[in-house]
Amino acid sequence: MKPVKIGLLGLGTVGGGTVRVLKRNASEITRRAGRDIQIVAASARSLDKARICDTTGIRLTADPYEIVNDPEIDIVVELIGGLDPAQDLVLQALDAGKHVVTANKMLIALHGNEVFAKAREKGVMVAFEAAVAGGIPIIKALREGLSGNTVEWLAGIINGTCNFILTEMWEKGRDFGEVLKEAQALGYAEADPTFDVEGVDAAHKLTILASIAFGIPLQFAKVYIEGISGITALDVTYAEALGYRIKLLGIARRTAEGIELRVHPTLIPARRLIANVNGVMNAVLVKGDAVGPTLYYGAGAGAEPTASAVVADIVDVVRTLTSDPDNRVPHLAFQPGAIADIPVLPIEAVETAYYLRLSAEDKPGVLADVTRILANHNISIEAIIQKEAPQGGSQLPVILLIHKVRERELNEAVARIEALPTIGGSVKRIRLETLG
Amino acid sequence: MKPVKIGLLGLGTVGGGTVRVLKRNASEITRRAGRDIQIVAASARSLDKARICDTTGIRLTADPYEIVNDPEIDIVVELIGGLDPAQDLVLQALDAGKHVVTANKMLIALHGNEVFAKAREKGVMVAFEAAVAGGIPIIKALREGLSGNTVEWLAGIINGTCNFILTEMWEKGRDFGEVLKEAQALGYAEADPTFDVEGVDAAHKLTILASIAFGIPLQFAKVYIEGISGITALDVTYAEALGYRIKLLGIARRTAEGIELRVHPTLIPARRLIANVNGVMNAVLVKGDAVGPTLYYGAGAGAEPTASAVVADIVDVVRTLTSDPDNRVPHLAFQPGAIADIPVLPIEAVETAYYLRLSAEDKPGVLADVTRILANHNISIEAIIQKEAPQGGSQLPVILLIHKVRERELNEAVARIEALPTIGGSVKRIRLETLG
Repeated sequence: MKPVKIGLLGLGTVGGGTVRVLKRNASEITRRAGRDIQIVAASARSLDKARICDTTGIRLTADPYEIVNDPEIDIVVELIGGLDPAQDLVLQALDAGKHVVTANKMLIALHGNEVFAKAREKGVMVAFEAAVAGGIPIIKALREGLSGNTVEWLAGIINGTCNFILTEMWEKGRDFGEVLKEAQALGYAEADPTFDVEGVDAAHKLTILASIAFGIPLQFAKVYIEGISGITALDVTYAEALGYRIKLLGIARRTAEGIELRVHPTLIPARRLIANVNGVMNAVLVKGDAVGPTLYYGAGAGAEPTASAVVADIVDVVRTLTSDPDNRVPHLAFQPGAIADIPVLPIEAVETAYYLRLSAEDKPGVLADVTRILANHNISIEAIIQKEAPQGGSQLPVILLIHKVRERELNEAVARIEALPTIGGSVKRIRLETLG
Repeated sequence: MKPVKIGLLGLGTVGGGTVRVLKRNASEITRRAGRDIQIVAASARSLDKARICDTTGIRLTADPYEIVNDPEIDIVVELIGGLDPAQDLVLQALDAGKHVVTANKMLIALHGNEVFAKAREKGVMVAFEAAVAGGIPIIKALREGLSGNTVEWLAGIINGTCNFILTEMWEKGRDFGEVLKEAQALGYAEADPTFDVEGVDAAHKLTILASIAFGIPLQFAKVYIEGISGITALDVTYAEALGYRIKLLGIARRTAEGIELRVHPTLIPARRLIANVNGVMNAVLVKGDAVGPTLYYGAGAGAEPTASAVVADIVDVVRTLTSDPDNRVPHLAFQPGAIADIPVLPIEAVETAYYLRLSAEDKPGVLADVTRILANHNISIEAIIQKEAPQGGSQLPVILLIHKVRERELNEAVARIEALPTIGGSVKRIRLETLG
């Protein structure tokens, strides 16, 4: 069979990795795909800088539009990232009847509905395994491997930067700011780390996972997002003493009232496998009604792990080149006409357990006041720990683990606790999930 | 589109689970597959016993051949297990031009080459996700999700019975025989547990995984197999003290000299995620050259987890019903003409690290004799621990961890150690893998 011709948009870290992997494993990939896969052209912003990979045999251009309009090219691989110009390039490539493989989570999370509609109109595929959790084939697992299940919930460590920071804080008792600086020096965090540490990147990925798990539209704007910048070494230590680790999780859950979509730091039992996923590694835990819990673990970023997903998508596209466009795996796992607009719950309506940390005066009766307020709001307590006052301080740290409560109810209770004259400052709140 | 019609062979545990899952999730599955999937007929050995599931709307028959020859049926799902009559039924179904989904690891491991050849001849598919690791979509991950990689090695906990027994031994310090009896009472182990505890079942699954990881023929006869019946509570305790857990692993590795295929109890570092996979759960760790290590975890057996894989296979087959048979994912991941008959190494040629336990007289010079023999065979030692003699005994247990050594070399060294007059009985040997 004649070779499949690829045009690459972007020769940065992932683009370079993709070229390297496709060249190194060319014969292995052809053994699988049944035909050669050739990168015939690639675009890069700057053509004269030293290349990240060997580009022998690849036509280089500074103009990505040259690639999306090249009639010789079968599949366009978009590895530029961001929205401008990636969005326009992808839509033009689809318009030109080309299949698209992309690692662009922001594009899919924010504009996927439009991109997929265009792809359907043109009878071509958009594959995006690399957009979520790097090299872990989680899109494939959810969309095809678990297709017999009603997915009940999923919870993922889907931002390597945050997991690296939280792992360092846990292993070495270090503080957030200090570890963030190290992560930046190591290249694990950007100069402006907001996207990662404030949970936005994880929310892009969660948007995609939730959509293919439940067959709902992509709706990034409805994700509740809370990052890890407020987590202190103290919280990590107290959590550990109680048998929990703190991880930034993206959680999607189907309840009788609607869908929960949330990204936030979370206490999880230390004995759970996912609690032991450390450093920059990612993992997604999926609970299906038939299969029970399943977990998928691997590198969530990096040149070659991401390239692994890109190449798998290319091979998948090659395999459907001769298939009936109406009988492919749908982009969002469910048939376009079967996407259900199940309401997404506002965070105030979500129920979770909680870790609460407060500063109390060292006086009799303070705990009684706090527990009475919780009882009045029907909030039951799993554990209370009162610590020694830190040196020189007159306030005692009090840690409470409380059972599941609706956010709205907890907000009221916390406001009352904070109004107590014996309580200093605000109550620190971190959600807790048993993931059982 | 018109419904796809399924004929089920076998209404035991997995057959019943498959009926339940297909009925319960019918609307969810149709939302995904784009058409209804109906079980129209099922065969069972006994028709009058109380059914494990609601069989309303399903034509029941005692004759499975009625199903494989029924022109109305599109896909035959074989859930009888074993070779006779499953093998003949599958071949007849293929001959009749029907696609086949099977959970039968023995059939695929022993006769897969012939089954797939027949399927190719007839232009139909044989899907077997449920044959390995129950509900974990590991076949799909290896065959499609990691298709950009050269797979370097894989290591799996792929027998739930053994993992349950080893977990109990580790958690509670119990002995093998006692836990085996409990596993039998719980239904986790068969009355004749040989297949599970002696590693044969794991070897069937490893045969399949290795074939699709490396693109080699299915060759069960070349797997080195060693079960867990020789593991004692003492070994589990000593391993733990050294920072290791003992798991029954199926390991396939590609080396410059050939392929390693082996099932045996293995010490693995306790900090590895896979070392913390407990109870009846399964997990497979796959190392690809691009993606690095990835891990897949879930239930390896049971009615609905296995049904989850069976239904996913059915949906996959439905999606390729209109595709070009020559451009599907190949049965063994690699194109039939590209299967490479790379030699499988005999166990004597395999290199691994080892845990050795020996009984030594409590005399000066004994350790010197042992270490001299190891040094003479160029075997380097990572750790030596000498324990107190058990009550009333005069022999001291000595535990050694040794670095990688070729089996043949170790056999000679061990023979010399066992010939020392100061060493009692035989040397206990358990392989050790760092899985790094």
